[in-house]
Amino acid sequence: MWLQREITLDPRPRGFHLITREVVGALPELRELRAGLLHLFIRHTSASLTLNENASPDVRRDFESWFDEAVPERAPYWTHTLEGPDDMPAHVKASLLGPSLSLPVSAGRLALGTWQGIYLCEHRDRGGPRSLLATVHGE
Amino acid sequence: MWLQREITLDPRPRGFHLITREVVGALPELRELRAGLLHLFIRHTSASLTLNENASPDVRRDFESWFDEAVPERAPYWTHTLEGPDDMPAHVKASLLGPSLSLPVSAGRLALGTWQGIYLCEHRDRGGPRSLLATVHGE
Amino acid sequence: MWLQREITLDPRPRGFHLITREVVGALPELRELRAGLLHLFIRHTSASLTLNENASPDVRRDFESWFDEAVPERAPYWTHTLEGPDDMPAHVKASLLGPSLSLPVSAGRLALGTWQGIYLCEHRDRGGPRSLLATVHGE
Repeated sequence: MWLQREITLDPRPRGFHLITREVVGALPELRELRAGLLHLFIRHTSASLTLNENASPDVRRDFESWFDEAVPERAPYWTHTLEGPDDMPAHVKASLLGPSLSLPVSAGRLALGTWQGIYLCEHRDRGGPRSLLATVHGE
Repeated sequence: MWLQREITLDPRPRGFHLITREVVGALPELRELRAGLLHLFIRHTSASLTLNENASPDVRRDFESWFDEAVPERAPYWTHTLEGPDDMPAHVKASLLGPSLSLPVSAGRLALGTWQGIYLCEHRDRGGPRSLLATVHGE
Repeated sequence: MWLQREITLDPRPRGFHLITREVVGALPELRELRAGLLHLFIRHTSASLTLNENASPDVRRDFESWFDEAVPERAPYWTHTLEGPDDMPAHVKASLLGPSLSLPVSAGRLALGTWQGIYLCEHRDRGGPRSLLATVHGE
């Protein structure tokens, strides 16, 4: 089985956002798979996807703090500044975290660990809606 | 062919550990594939997987040094500190390196470069055993 | 359909290089896929692959600046220095960005966002030719 579906995420503020429920809800066909993979792909260069702790909102806030410290705005080495001070850091953060996740599906469910959740990482101040392309594949 | 198998890794100290032999040894079915992919997925949010140099132990030590410098414990911006000073840095390191690897399989073998080996990246002081889910798929 | 093909990239200077056209040109079979995935894998530990902005060369220059600042040469914590000051930073940068990309294929084309392009990230001063293994899979 191959299935591809676009999932449009509503605009969210800059930061890290838990979207596991929204993604799984958009893909009821996962239930039909004995074994397979879900590939999630974000079609942007200033937002990204990662997997991390799904319980404490302070973990997601601390992610934002670390990334803002590690990839600072207004650093002297940025030359691509026309699109605003949050633009170039957003590109670097997006590549550090990556544009896709490949997640195992077993017995009709995402085979995540107990504490793993899917994060949308919004690196722009006003990123607008974000488009994901989900590719489901398995038997 | 779709195959899924859990691989439990014994507890290892904080640091970067070469696990190529252990992973390949747990998946004898790789030999039956003409072409395919091995997806390795770690079901935790404070350990990760990467691919890097398989020969010099000092490379793995230097990885630990860099990550400890780049994602410091006891930084003023951490608010999620209840689970110990190594917890929040472990979450960030885990997302920087990522929870999965997709590796090509060709003619019955992992098609890695000469110097590439699979690293378990243990970011906690006492992470305990770690659970991997391997998904093998090909023809 | 499973297809595997090696793509050899000519030597490029240290930095970030757009290779979308070269990769797609080497894989005319993508046109035959209704839905699928392209897995690109670099068989080296001092170069990597990422996806980012495909229009402005200054974005790629700023990537190089940020990575050189974040993973400095001649830092006091490096012990693996025999292969030159650019070697150990190259290993760390390669793992931060990762050795592979999984990209969706829809209706015969890479389903990238408008601004997304494939970067070869060359982290060595003289990395030489680089070998990619492409695995195409779909229906």
